[in-house]
Amino acid sequence: MSNKTGRLLILNGPNLNMLGTREPGIYGATTLQDVEELCRRAAAEAGLEAELLQSNHEGVLIDAIHAARTTADGIVINPAAYTHTSVAIADALRAAELPVVEVHISNVHTREEFRHHSYVSPAAVAVIAGAGLNGYRYAVDHLASLLGED
Amino acid sequence: MSNKTGRLLILNGPNLNMLGTREPGIYGATTLQDVEELCRRAAAEAGLEAELLQSNHEGVLIDAIHAARTTADGIVINPAAYTHTSVAIADALRAAELPVVEVHISNVHTREEFRHHSYVSPAAVAVIAGAGLNGYRYAVDHLASLLGED
Amino acid sequence: MSNKTGRLLILNGPNLNMLGTREPGIYGATTLQDVEELCRRAAAEAGLEAELLQSNHEGVLIDAIHAARTTADGIVINPAAYTHTSVAIADALRAAELPVVEVHISNVHTREEFRHHSYVSPAAVAVIAGAGLNGYRYAVDHLASLLGED
Amino acid sequence: MSNKTGRLLILNGPNLNMLGTREPGIYGATTLQDVEELCRRAAAEAGLEAELLQSNHEGVLIDAIHAARTTADGIVINPAAYTHTSVAIADALRAAELPVVEVHISNVHTREEFRHHSYVSPAAVAVIAGAGLNGYRYAVDHLASLLGED
Amino acid sequence: MSNKTGRLLILNGPNLNMLGTREPGIYGATTLQDVEELCRRAAAEAGLEAELLQSNHEGVLIDAIHAARTTADGIVINPAAYTHTSVAIADALRAAELPVVEVHISNVHTREEFRHHSYVSPAAVAVIAGAGLNGYRYAVDHLASLLGED
Amino acid sequence: MSNKTGRLLILNGPNLNMLGTREPGIYGATTLQDVEELCRRAAAEAGLEAELLQSNHEGVLIDAIHAARTTADGIVINPAAYTHTSVAIADALRAAELPVVEVHISNVHTREEFRHHSYVSPAAVAVIAGAGLNGYRYAVDHLASLLGED
Amino acid sequence: MSNKTGRLLILNGPNLNMLGTREPGIYGATTLQDVEELCRRAAAEAGLEAELLQSNHEGVLIDAIHAARTTADGIVINPAAYTHTSVAIADALRAAELPVVEVHISNVHTREEFRHHSYVSPAAVAVIAGAGLNGYRYAVDHLASLLGED
Amino acid sequence: MSNKTGRLLILNGPNLNMLGTREPGIYGATTLQDVEELCRRAAAEAGLEAELLQSNHEGVLIDAIHAARTTADGIVINPAAYTHTSVAIADALRAAELPVVEVHISNVHTREEFRHHSYVSPAAVAVIAGAGLNGYRYAVDHLASLLGED
Amino acid sequence: MSNKTGRLLILNGPNLNMLGTREPGIYGATTLQDVEELCRRAAAEAGLEAELLQSNHEGVLIDAIHAARTTADGIVINPAAYTHTSVAIADALRAAELPVVEVHISNVHTREEFRHHSYVSPAAVAVIAGAGLNGYRYAVDHLASLLGED
Amino acid sequence: MSNKTGRLLILNGPNLNMLGTREPGIYGATTLQDVEELCRRAAAEAGLEAELLQSNHEGVLIDAIHAARTTADGIVINPAAYTHTSVAIADALRAAELPVVEVHISNVHTREEFRHHSYVSPAAVAVIAGAGLNGYRYAVDHLASLLGED
Amino acid sequence: MSNKTGRLLILNGPNLNMLGTREPGIYGATTLQDVEELCRRAAAEAGLEAELLQSNHEGVLIDAIHAARTTADGIVINPAAYTHTSVAIADALRAAELPVVEVHISNVHTREEFRHHSYVSPAAVAVIAGAGLNGYRYAVDHLASLLGED
Amino acid sequence: MSNKTGRLLILNGPNLNMLGTREPGIYGATTLQDVEELCRRAAAEAGLEAELLQSNHEGVLIDAIHAARTTADGIVINPAAYTHTSVAIADALRAAELPVVEVHISNVHTREEFRHHSYVSPAAVAVIAGAGLNGYRYAVDHLASLLGED
Repeated sequence: MSNKTGRLLILNGPNLNMLGTREPGIYGATTLQDVEELCRRAAAEAGLEAELLQSNHEGVLIDAIHAARTTADGIVINPAAYTHTSVAIADALRAAELPVVEVHISNVHTREEFRHHSYVSPAAVAVIAGAGLNGYRYAVDHLASLLGED
Repeated sequence: MSNKTGRLLILNGPNLNMLGTREPGIYGATTLQDVEELCRRAAAEAGLEAELLQSNHEGVLIDAIHAARTTADGIVINPAAYTHTSVAIADALRAAELPVVEVHISNVHTREEFRHHSYVSPAAVAVIAGAGLNGYRYAVDHLASLLGED
Repeated sequence: MSNKTGRLLILNGPNLNMLGTREPGIYGATTLQDVEELCRRAAAEAGLEAELLQSNHEGVLIDAIHAARTTADGIVINPAAYTHTSVAIADALRAAELPVVEVHISNVHTREEFRHHSYVSPAAVAVIAGAGLNGYRYAVDHLASLLGED
Repeated sequence: MSNKTGRLLILNGPNLNMLGTREPGIYGATTLQDVEELCRRAAAEAGLEAELLQSNHEGVLIDAIHAARTTADGIVINPAAYTHTSVAIADALRAAELPVVEVHISNVHTREEFRHHSYVSPAAVAVIAGAGLNGYRYAVDHLASLLGED
Repeated sequence: MSNKTGRLLILNGPNLNMLGTREPGIYGATTLQDVEELCRRAAAEAGLEAELLQSNHEGVLIDAIHAARTTADGIVINPAAYTHTSVAIADALRAAELPVVEVHISNVHTREEFRHHSYVSPAAVAVIAGAGLNGYRYAVDHLASLLGED
Repeated sequence: MSNKTGRLLILNGPNLNMLGTREPGIYGATTLQDVEELCRRAAAEAGLEAELLQSNHEGVLIDAIHAARTTADGIVINPAAYTHTSVAIADALRAAELPVVEVHISNVHTREEFRHHSYVSPAAVAVIAGAGLNGYRYAVDHLASLLGED
Repeated sequence: MSNKTGRLLILNGPNLNMLGTREPGIYGATTLQDVEELCRRAAAEAGLEAELLQSNHEGVLIDAIHAARTTADGIVINPAAYTHTSVAIADALRAAELPVVEVHISNVHTREEFRHHSYVSPAAVAVIAGAGLNGYRYAVDHLASLLGED
Repeated sequence: MSNKTGRLLILNGPNLNMLGTREPGIYGATTLQDVEELCRRAAAEAGLEAELLQSNHEGVLIDAIHAARTTADGIVINPAAYTHTSVAIADALRAAELPVVEVHISNVHTREEFRHHSYVSPAAVAVIAGAGLNGYRYAVDHLASLLGED
Repeated sequence: MSNKTGRLLILNGPNLNMLGTREPGIYGATTLQDVEELCRRAAAEAGLEAELLQSNHEGVLIDAIHAARTTADGIVINPAAYTHTSVAIADALRAAELPVVEVHISNVHTREEFRHHSYVSPAAVAVIAGAGLNGYRYAVDHLASLLGED
Repeated sequence: MSNKTGRLLILNGPNLNMLGTREPGIYGATTLQDVEELCRRAAAEAGLEAELLQSNHEGVLIDAIHAARTTADGIVINPAAYTHTSVAIADALRAAELPVVEVHISNVHTREEFRHHSYVSPAAVAVIAGAGLNGYRYAVDHLASLLGED
Repeated sequence: MSNKTGRLLILNGPNLNMLGTREPGIYGATTLQDVEELCRRAAAEAGLEAELLQSNHEGVLIDAIHAARTTADGIVINPAAYTHTSVAIADALRAAELPVVEVHISNVHTREEFRHHSYVSPAAVAVIAGAGLNGYRYAVDHLASLLGED
Repeated sequence: MSNKTGRLLILNGPNLNMLGTREPGIYGATTLQDVEELCRRAAAEAGLEAELLQSNHEGVLIDAIHAARTTADGIVINPAAYTHTSVAIADALRAAELPVVEVHISNVHTREEFRHHSYVSPAAVAVIAGAGLNGYRYAVDHLASLLGED
């Protein structure tokens, strides 16, 4: 690991606060709290600290990404519905100039056509979809290994 | 009517606060206050209570929809411009697991091509466009009759 | 109400004679007779008379719309499958120069892609989809309120 | 002129019975009777007889085209709205194996996008649009000159 | 064979009355009478009765399909040009709730692009194109074998 | 006829100088000289004078259209290949503020897909395709009748 | 039957070796062995011999088609997934210069959009989809009747 | 200049707070502060006052545009990423009924395809892209000259 | 300013010679002479010389752009209709290797769909549309400021 | 872990034998041997056995997937170029009825448009792209956790 | 060689006069003079004479093609930017009824999407792209061999 | 010539073994043996050796391309049907890091739409179509001249 402070920003986008409640057939029974706990633990195991934020507000997510530019070393983001509509979040991620891993809990490729396109993916180093909560764990692990390479 | 508490959330999306001011050729002279009064009265006549919210913020609308999950029995929404661009609002409506009626004051099908597509419609039970303020009245009435069926 | 004679033409397009029989999962158990009775009653309540016609023949529907030009004050039409394929019916509605409300029993937006486009909508003042039989009631009510404005 | 009997079938499609009434801004004030009289006169001047038919029924138009195969030497058709939607009429015209001229009173190219495509044109020898009633006169004249070439 | 009455409705759509006359390069020299005789014979061999109808009128075809719901056990349909434009016929076939086999005499896939799409196919159990008159024979045979499975 | 000077500009676009030589299967054996003679005669019969120009240069055609604004009362144009590619000629025709009739010798609708779109048609009052040389005669006649209406 | 040797090549493409195992909801319980036995019997009844090949390798299928050029009189092919992606197989079928019947066990038109397009169909004389195993029987029968015509 | 109060609202959309930091290859080294200072100075030179707002929140931008309706005489907006996705901002600009100039620092036409479409442009009087900071100066100047015309 | 000779080529494309005459609703009453005078003055104020050319001939515009390579320091071009159709002018501008500003008098984004695409924009540094004659002034100013940076 | 034998098939598609050699800018310096060793180790750590296969032959990959149906408990596949063109591999994966994880070493979303579509993804439970060799490790881990759930 | 005079017209389209100057990264350092010399020499070696023309004017190129009809035996054309936009040049080449070889110096398939489509190719016998100056040599050689076959 | 060993791999794709047999109207009467002999001779004349391979198997072609990486200095490939469907061959050619010339015997641009797109062209330095066998000769010559430049 480099002499970086080793902090990750872990962002969850719109409606993910409803995890465990909303459409369990697609998203399973785990809650956002489970996700966040898992992320903290995964980060800790990699010697990193995790800052967590969920918001339904595109602007709040953008503000957090901007802040991360100086306070974090990498970003894990599940942009949820904004994946398909937000050029602004993708531009914010580019502006942050940090490694980004995009995570989707479900396999978006088996859902509606409009969910197959992501504005965010070209701004990410890696994209993980359909691996459930494991996806967050892999995202943290991959950022850790990228940061370790510096 | 079932033993539900009988509350409706009535949401108006971006720019609808400008009703009566903005482009009267398309939207007429009635104001948002007129709309809201009409909705309250229509709800009262159906033995329901109406909670009203207008916001220009996608995130605020999503938060309100989430809250409605436990506090309301149905949702009337005029998503205005977000109709055509917000996957997040549509996902929030799905997550709410309540009957939803989508209302548009003007007949969107006589306007620009991009207004012919709605992300919200597949998450609604019914869609009413072009009936002016009457549309809200019909939406309340339809939700009342759906709730009465339980 | 103006000094108009106060008559509505209520048209049901192809396959609606099969209502109650055909695909009840989509269209419910009510029959065309139920629809027509409901329309007559709704018109009567609004002080209007309802002329009713169902046909599977595009040409018969067009002939009826032409006749309505001189014998009716408004048209309620559920164009069913012709919604998506008949420029001729839409042109007939334009030629009638009467207020038109388009009704669909089911929410067409949750069905096949080709059912999302309507040639009729640009020729209508209002479009109501997914409100079941209530849709006809709202259509009659809306025409009554438009006629009352004259 | 060949020793053919010299008969033309002149077909007018849906809503053309409303000519002179319907949308005079687009179609002018002349009526279907004016059109038919003009066609008879134009045919007579060219030593031809004109059989005239207007129908709002696709099937009636097809039946007439089939009959023309043995009773006429050429067809003038203004398919109106069926221009854009009827493969069946186009196939009937092909099956008739007679020279066909397609006429449109208005310039369809200045109207809605869907009016720019014609299923009928590939089955016609010539297409005349926007020349008002003159279009019928030119169609009769052109068929006369084609028949004269035999 | 089940205790069904064993009746098939065999429908031929627009322009098929011109068979043997129209474009023999594409459709061959056999006439509609040949087709109908062949179908009757094929049905008889399978212990079934065949009711035959050809019409150029979409509405007449729809009416016949509706009637078949209670009078027939299966439908063979060559929708001809309506294949590509009639949602109404496809909906009627769905409403009939009978097994349907779609037949095309020529191989539509070697013809114009617009003939490659069929509204009817999703409402059919099987589709046979390009096998000439044999196609009808196979359709009758396949329906017989489906009915025999009951 | 009004007190206008009664002059028509008759423009032939690229490759039409090759008429009679080029692809006689599509364009027939008549030459540009035949076309021009026919136009002069048709104009004379209508009491009009015809100015004739053929050019393969888009710019030369535009210059001529501009000049016509003050020297002619109407324009007949066969834009040939520029039909499908020249916004500039269409804009010039709009700038001329004269009635324009677009003529095509062959029926463009039976040829390549790209020949089905015309930039010029929306700038014309009428479009005549596939009537061979007659098309020019009809165009002159139609302009004469439009000028006579003034 | 002509003095041809009377041999058919019957090809089954990728994954058809899994028949009876794979997705029985779509393909039923019969195995490839059942298909092949049925084909042999159907050929024998028509006085023909059937050579059978299943392969998951596009190249193997092409090689077999080439060989058939000199050793067979007709080809039955179920190209399975290669239907939608293999220009090479379609070109091989064209190069074989033999009558080809394309068979699909399921009705591809009720499945994913990409299964609606076939590269093979334009190289076939007939296409049969959704008739289950009967489809192979009809294909053999149709080839027999085509060969008998020589 | 008219007797208007002479105030301009100058809006900068998402990520423009990162100017000078973010992707200097595309946006250069100047900061948002530089932009705002330049706008104030340009406005002052034109005898106008400039109110400045940058936000990453679509809703905040919409609220500000609504307020401008009564407090400003014109709007300069760089909608950044919202250019391509926000119907709501475009509708707000229409509702404001003020002259609007859209500015982009970089030449969007040399970037990704999705950046070539603007929902905002049809709601603006003028669009300036690629002129760097000068673009803001020209926008202020153009609004000043429009206001001076009143 | 560098020791460059300080010359700008200012090109106006097809139909711009009709300015002030043509469609004043879109283009206003100013003439090409007004535009050219304004450009000369604006250049002079920036210490630059302006060479002016208007042509309706694509080739003439290309020749002028080539010449500018050695005689000018920047190009202002209003390509008018060629904006949407001329790859050749765009390639010429690239070959000139000079800074280019593209100007449109009207806001092309509020006009026909085909006017929203520009082949020229990717070859320009900046694009200004809808600012009327001011657009030329801003173009000259922006080139001056770019040249001053050298 | 269930009482399954715990075997994974790890497939690498076309050109992956060139890893470490081919385009290191995109794929890095690691070789296929490195990938396979890593997979074996990762599987071992999860108490699983890994069978490894790389092939440039679509048919060989399909045969291996079929075999896996009875010999393996899960499949990791990097379909490489076949991702975008092979319906046959996707169908084979469906036929295998095993959990599948799709891996891409590079982030396909930052490459050519045609690499953004995957036929394989709808047949996989999870998709991991851009995580380099880690992607294989995560795929093995995710399958292990899915198998552990049984 | 036939008793033809053995002359080739070698045409270079817009901007090719800038060869050696313009974008050497794409087009290399050779000039138009080099190209023309090479063509003359290649023609001479094949016992042919080469007439050479470069023009930026579409009309001039068309005129030259027309002239070639009677003065040349074959045409080599590098239509440059007109490749993608000129139906008129393609039609002229068809009208010339001579063998045509289309040459592009660079590999157009590695450049912008719009450069992948050629209106000219369907009017040519052969197309050579990306072979630099050799392309012209091969074009001359191929025409010589075609002429030698007569 | 550099000190390279001077070997070319000349690949012919699917169905080219049928040359001389298959569709002589399109491909002529020469056989694959003629092609290969010509290539060997052309290579010999250029001081190069030619290795020749034809295969109908995509995987065999890929394997050969990989091998060429270390055993050849350039590749001539006629990918035939795989041109339009094989990303894998294109990727193999990129991985080979050798100069590639793509050859098509016929002019693909005059055939079906799907033959106008090539996955291979962006991986080639030059593309030659429609020059018959000469195309191979030019390809060998061009590779020789590229190798001579080293």
